[in-house]
Amino acid sequence: MRDVVIVGVGSTPFGRHSGTPIEQLAVRAAAEAIVDSGVDRERIGALYLGNFISGPMNGKEVLAGLVAEQLGLPDIPCTKVEGACASGGIAFRHAWLAVASGQCDAALVVGVETMTHAKTAATTAALNCAMDNENDGPSGLTFPGLFGLAWRQHAQRYGTSRSQVSAVVRKNKGNGLLNPLAQMGATLTDEQIADSPPICDPLQLFDCCPTSDGAAAVMVMARELAGGLPGPAIDVLASVQTRGSARIAGHPDLCTFEATVSAARKAYAMSGLTPDDVDLVELHDCFSIAEVIDSEDLGLVPRGQGGFWAAEGRTAVGGQIAINPSGGLLAKGHPVGATGVGQLYEVVHQLRGTHPNQVAGARVGMTHNLGGTGVACTVTLLRRSDA
Amino acid sequence: MRDVVIVGVGSTPFGRHSGTPIEQLAVRAAAEAIVDSGVDRERIGALYLGNFISGPMNGKEVLAGLVAEQLGLPDIPCTKVEGACASGGIAFRHAWLAVASGQCDAALVVGVETMTHAKTAATTAALNCAMDNENDGPSGLTFPGLFGLAWRQHAQRYGTSRSQVSAVVRKNKGNGLLNPLAQMGATLTDEQIADSPPICDPLQLFDCCPTSDGAAAVMVMARELAGGLPGPAIDVLASVQTRGSARIAGHPDLCTFEATVSAARKAYAMSGLTPDDVDLVELHDCFSIAEVIDSEDLGLVPRGQGGFWAAEGRTAVGGQIAINPSGGLLAKGHPVGATGVGQLYEVVHQLRGTHPNQVAGARVGMTHNLGGTGVACTVTLLRRSDA
Repeated sequence: MRDVVIVGVGSTPFGRHSGTPIEQLAVRAAAEAIVDSGVDRERIGALYLGNFISGPMNGKEVLAGLVAEQLGLPDIPCTKVEGACASGGIAFRHAWLAVASGQCDAALVVGVETMTHAKTAATTAALNCAMDNENDGPSGLTFPGLFGLAWRQHAQRYGTSRSQVSAVVRKNKGNGLLNPLAQMGATLTDEQIADSPPICDPLQLFDCCPTSDGAAAVMVMARELAGGLPGPAIDVLASVQTRGSARIAGHPDLCTFEATVSAARKAYAMSGLTPDDVDLVELHDCFSIAEVIDSEDLGLVPRGQGGFWAAEGRTAVGGQIAINPSGGLLAKGHPVGATGVGQLYEVVHQLRGTHPNQVAGARVGMTHNLGGTGVACTVTLLRRSDA
Repeated sequence: MRDVVIVGVGSTPFGRHSGTPIEQLAVRAAAEAIVDSGVDRERIGALYLGNFISGPMNGKEVLAGLVAEQLGLPDIPCTKVEGACASGGIAFRHAWLAVASGQCDAALVVGVETMTHAKTAATTAALNCAMDNENDGPSGLTFPGLFGLAWRQHAQRYGTSRSQVSAVVRKNKGNGLLNPLAQMGATLTDEQIADSPPICDPLQLFDCCPTSDGAAAVMVMARELAGGLPGPAIDVLASVQTRGSARIAGHPDLCTFEATVSAARKAYAMSGLTPDDVDLVELHDCFSIAEVIDSEDLGLVPRGQGGFWAAEGRTAVGGQIAINPSGGLLAKGHPVGATGVGQLYEVVHQLRGTHPNQVAGARVGMTHNLGGTGVACTVTLLRRSDA
């Protein structure tokens, strides 16, 4: 397997893009990544597009080929991949694999979703496509329900409090204020969070990521071929995809997602790095409590300490480990298929030293993208090439 | 890249499976392929699932992980891929790539779709997800419309007649009668075909593949590791995926699909074979005229001669090149995401010499899976290992 580097990134703002067709958003982000990379279109040998619910939400599929055509790419394999909220991370892993295995010299990754045009009930129904509806459908649980249960269990076992979880929200909403791509940055007080409309006890509105449109893109290339390109290449040290249970009952312990634990373990082994090497992480905070759990599952924070660390500021920019300096899903937004690719966009800018909320001296960054009930997970480890 | 072989196949019948959840169909076919292969579940290192429209049709995604869990597979990367009607072929190519590149020793491919439970209008709307709806939507064209236009152009240029195209229908419906997995085998006369209800001039009902439920599965393995398995291994000599235009206006010549021409050319180059080496092909006859065009695009029949060859019986079992001995999409059915994998199921049985409509002495077989307006295409070349 060849070494692979990221040589270009692009992204639309996350938020409302009413009236813009989904493929146009994807084309916009991808065109930016192509220009950023300096890679000639004729050299791109594969396109992977991560998308979750364009079928039910837009009546549009075959997006991979559609986007490639509008970008003027040659006759190359163009594939949409889907793994619920991990679709973007899965797309990246396949582009990495195509280049690492020598199938092509460069590959383009695009993640995209449009959601804000639909009514809430339709969006909720579409998002529930990520559940095992035969088995869990009759329970009536939706994703806020699942994460509400997880919070209850975490609070009971580890003493995680409302104010600790609010610290996650305050941090990420604050980080989002510094990120021009973020949908909902804000300066919030504990009271504003606790008093925001209840969604699914104990989750309030500000504990939940918003509904978003957006697209992000990444260009990967074989390291040995990336020499003459304009920008700084970022090393891909590990790209891992794992599977957990699609059933809620398949998770007897809701304080952990086994797919995250497994992906992190494999990524550390693949890269030779340890959690201590990681300077920042963009992780899957679809709900505030998810960040607490993810940070522990990834080995970045001791088990049970996710809430404590957030409250003590140890996960802020400038703290021990910067978690979601972009604002995360909570503030940046969560256009589902775009999220995993958007995380890579953010980490690449951090490692280039060009992020608007820069982590000083960042050398190693991680992304973590989790799908459904933890049925799919990807973890990526990136390093500044001169580091 | 390592040599790859197919070591197991499985399939449900294609047709109506009312009330059976889509993931159950997939599990049934996959379990059969696992048993057929003799590969231990713990050795399977990746699962690729081809599906097109389970989101809009069933409100179900994350099928790859869901199916893996119900099969009792370990924590492995599980990925749904989508490329309209070529989804199954794309899934196979990715499993092949995972094994060929050394990512894993064995990989499981599943293709699945359920369609018969929905109303015709809903199915048509879902199928139209495979079009470039922004550009072609306003034209009002559906897929029968596109292939009706193609027929007109082919007839005008090459003199292809109703009775020649009917010969395709009679052949495939007749082949289907011999295939216990086929949905709609029949003995038809030219009059019955010409007098069947009009769909989109000049297409009559029997020119169109039926709406179907079904699943098929294939196990691939590294050739060097497949020695001790019970069944005869089938060599994968080429697995190719290409892209054509997603727009109808992107096909100024409707008598050919450039993605098919390109895929065939690449598959012949990759395998070192020529069209003369191919004993049989399962190709994408979503409509009768599609078989005519595909057979020419694949280089199996001289340009413009597809109709003539069918009428002369040269594409029947026992003819020069056996086309769709399974009955093809026209008779076997077209559960979209399953189709490309089902074609591999059929060819593997031909090369094992165990097909109910056996092509005598078959050594080399081809599959051809075409998505949407030709936006995605896969071609596979398989050979009997002792051949």
